Amino acid sequence: MDTLIGIDLGGTNIVCGLSDLEGNLLHMVKLPTEAERGSDDVLRKMADMTGLLVRQAGRDMKSVRAIGVGTPGFIDPVRGVNKFSSNLKWENVPMAGLLSAMTNKPVFINNDVKMYMYGEALKGAGQGHPCVLGVTIGTGLSAAVIHNGDIFYGGDYLAGELGHVPIEGNDFPCKCGMTGCLETIVSATGIAGQARRGIESGRDSVMSGWHPDLSQLTAADVSLAYDMNDSLAIDVMNRTGKVLAIGLSFAIPLVSPDVVLIGGGGALAGPRLFRPLQEELARRVHPMYMGKLAVKPAMHNEHAGVIGSALYALKQLSD
Amino acid sequence: MDTLIGIDLGGTNIVCGLSDLEGNLLHMVKLPTEAERGSDDVLRKMADMTGLLVRQAGRDMKSVRAIGVGTPGFIDPVRGVNKFSSNLKWENVPMAGLLSAMTNKPVFINNDVKMYMYGEALKGAGQGHPCVLGVTIGTGLSAAVIHNGDIFYGGDYLAGELGHVPIEGNDFPCKCGMTGCLETIVSATGIAGQARRGIESGRDSVMSGWHPDLSQLTAADVSLAYDMNDSLAIDVMNRTGKVLAIGLSFAIPLVSPDVVLIGGGGALAGPRLFRPLQEELARRVHPMYMGKLAVKPAMHNEHAGVIGSALYALKQLSD
Repeated sequence: MDTLIGIDLGGTNIVCGLSDLEGNLLHMVKLPTEAERGSDDVLRKMADMTGLLVRQAGRDMKSVRAIGVGTPGFIDPVRGVNKFSSNLKWENVPMAGLLSAMTNKPVFINNDVKMYMYGEALKGAGQGHPCVLGVTIGTGLSAAVIHNGDIFYGGDYLAGELGHVPIEGNDFPCKCGMTGCLETIVSATGIAGQARRGIESGRDSVMSGWHPDLSQLTAADVSLAYDMNDSLAIDVMNRTGKVLAIGLSFAIPLVSPDVVLIGGGGALAGPRLFRPLQEELARRVHPMYMGKLAVKPAMHNEHAGVIGSALYALKQLSD
Repeated sequence: MDTLIGIDLGGTNIVCGLSDLEGNLLHMVKLPTEAERGSDDVLRKMADMTGLLVRQAGRDMKSVRAIGVGTPGFIDPVRGVNKFSSNLKWENVPMAGLLSAMTNKPVFINNDVKMYMYGEALKGAGQGHPCVLGVTIGTGLSAAVIHNGDIFYGGDYLAGELGHVPIEGNDFPCKCGMTGCLETIVSATGIAGQARRGIESGRDSVMSGWHPDLSQLTAADVSLAYDMNDSLAIDVMNRTGKVLAIGLSFAIPLVSPDVVLIGGGGALAGPRLFRPLQEELARRVHPMYMGKLAVKPAMHNEHAGVIGSALYALKQLSD
């Protein structure tokens, strides 16, 4: 049986998966990225992982038709170059060529969020929906549009940065250099930050005693407090859902998606995020769009990027 | 020489143009739409106009390879059906089939704003820019995205309605049924309405004596007052530019255009609109996008839809 390898390269971990040609996962391997060792070391580790993966799965490297890689950063998928990744601290790394030389396989790279949503569109919660607008909520927020299986790239392949739009009345500094960006609220960091600022400003909360150092508060803490009916945690999640709805209220009429997928850690927030999100969307998006729109969590979550990368590589082979 | 016919069907006028295969206009004919007579009459008039057009240009109908039509409304370009147009008061009119039967030519229809920006992208101010985000500002506001010559359609071909997004702090009712939509500010109607409300609320303005009935104020009046240094008119145009920038601040990082084109009557506002627009964009859009972005008025204005429709028809023939 012919196989594919999909690799999801993250700032923390590399996840490497073997799949059949339909994107069904057969085996997975996961190792820490250790990006600080530099791109050569990381690419060498990725190459080694592909060998390990195939051996552990009891397969032969000959069965592998192609390797796809989802990587953070600004990617030129045609040239196979990671132009810039603040996450990995890489610049102009010709990843596809280097990894292809190490593995003797055709290698195709693309942006990690685009690969994640490509996997969800073809094989996950987006299946059956022609136009998918996906948002990943993790340490930051990013988006991707997949229409009839085609990734929307925009100029210089830079489409999708819905996280870096200033929101009225928000003055949180963003790591991108601007102020008040959407992702300073709608992200794991943003959720924790809102809670921390709430406590610091004197609001009563069960969370106030959970960490000696408030900077250690996490989005998971906010979820826990929310489930204990903590009013600060509830306000934080409501505001997070509302601000995400503001961003989507512009994106939905412009893109006309059939489904909005929420992926990354944000999908785990469940109704804590989805309820205020849906309520605000109903207020802000015309019924013509809302009527046909499903808003759903992603299905594969940490495997979506692996599946998407594998299927993307197969598609490139035939294009 | 082979030719194309492009038709821009508007609520007020039908503009019909003959072009060569590169979209260079050879001759034009314009007649009132009289949409109230119903779709059969309007389509018959369009068919008659094509004959008149070709005769006046001293050509033969045999030279016409195809006819393209840009029409207001929600269009299914594949089936050739105008599904709904509030402007024309049409529902489910199979325009392409009917007009093709009347003219014995292949007819392709599409949404008027998409055709306008298709013309600008291929043959106007968008030439040389791979990814074009176009906004037409007239009685309403609508948008279109053309990337590498491909129109972005979204689900049900409904992408582009950036005009119908509620703007914080705006409570103007919109004809779409929602409240505070972007186009209640950024449109000819919106500009006139802001001025009228300003005068009604007691603001001093040269415009206050221009019409016995304030509802007759127009966007052109506001431009005139602006040029007379009228502070209300200046405030109106600044707010219009700012609100357009808010909408674009979400669209630009999501789409990553290489150029933003402003078409329709809005293009005529010139620096009165472009100056505050550019200033707000510089505040709200990350330098990564602004650095590569040109913001320009459309080039062909009332001919862009004709040129776009003609070139679109040719493209469909070869697809």
